[in-house]
Amino acid sequence: MIVVLRIGHRPQRDMRVTTHVGLTARALGASGMYIAADDKGVVESITDVSTRFGGDFFAEDKVGWSSCIKKWKQNGGCVVHLTMFGMNLPDVEAEIRTKEKIMVVVGAEKVPGDIYQMADYNVAVTNQPHSEIAGLAVFLDHIAPNALHREFPGAKVRVYPNPCGKTVEEL
Amino acid sequence: MIVVLRIGHRPQRDMRVTTHVGLTARALGASGMYIAADDKGVVESITDVSTRFGGDFFAEDKVGWSSCIKKWKQNGGCVVHLTMFGMNLPDVEAEIRTKEKIMVVVGAEKVPGDIYQMADYNVAVTNQPHSEIAGLAVFLDHIAPNALHREFPGAKVRVYPNPCGKTVEEL
Repeated sequence: MIVVLRIGHRPQRDMRVTTHVGLTARALGASGMYIAADDKGVVESITDVSTRFGGDFFAEDKVGWSSCIKKWKQNGGCVVHLTMFGMNLPDVEAEIRTKEKIMVVVGAEKVPGDIYQMADYNVAVTNQPHSEIAGLAVFLDHIAPNALHREFPGAKVRVYPNPCGKTVEEL
Repeated sequence: MIVVLRIGHRPQRDMRVTTHVGLTARALGASGMYIAADDKGVVESITDVSTRFGGDFFAEDKVGWSSCIKKWKQNGGCVVHLTMFGMNLPDVEAEIRTKEKIMVVVGAEKVPGDIYQMADYNVAVTNQPHSEIAGLAVFLDHIAPNALHREFPGAKVRVYPNPCGKTVEEL
């Protein structure tokens, strides 16, 4: 089981980026996302996609990041903080893949310094500056089982692969 | 050689997302990004990162998307359009990996319908709605040689992997 914890989210300014984080988490195999901020709009956007495209991904805002991490660890979960300062993913992914419960902490521009010590792993998707959305996507593709072949039961809309157009089925 | 063509960019509204697209392209092995819009700010943000962190990634705005694609194809390049409606990446990646010159077209919310026919491949990173940044990241990780181990010569700042803190060298 993989969940995402989004920290450093600033309502309004980060709305689109955090929505992309949540939709990426859903599409590539995470079970849900906690948001350490008050932003009902982001939760609604993600929930709307889940309702239409299926699956049971959850999105929950107003979470305290520190207590959320502590509770996860008390329940035997492993915490992975994605940061350009961490160990490069290929060097730690085999070990992380053995964990049953993984919380992926995804920061915005600035994160509290404590997070580096609270995390079991600080992991970089290259040590170059880029995007937390890109980092999460590559991480999930490497760690989540069958990230690119997930099933989403209960969908109202389904898209089928098409080499040069759109095939959409309303269910 | 891989380049990115960003289409559908709306100045202001898409500034952050397009900057993430460009930085992801740079970090994971593309040579540069064409932007089919007038947005000097995005070009400057990306160029600033390249100057500090090295490499010779280019960012160019005010490009006509249609002529840019046609010119690329005339020069023997292959065009891959990333879209949730396309063929799932795992089913086409082996064939795409044999191409020497790849242009990856990354749309925003809406793209011109012509693009589906102009592209040699329409490729989905899952047929679920998520993020063009995530799609590009996974695509490059699968297609660009050594995407997670690139070298960036001429850097003024270098970050070294650290299991629980920050190691930054000013050069």
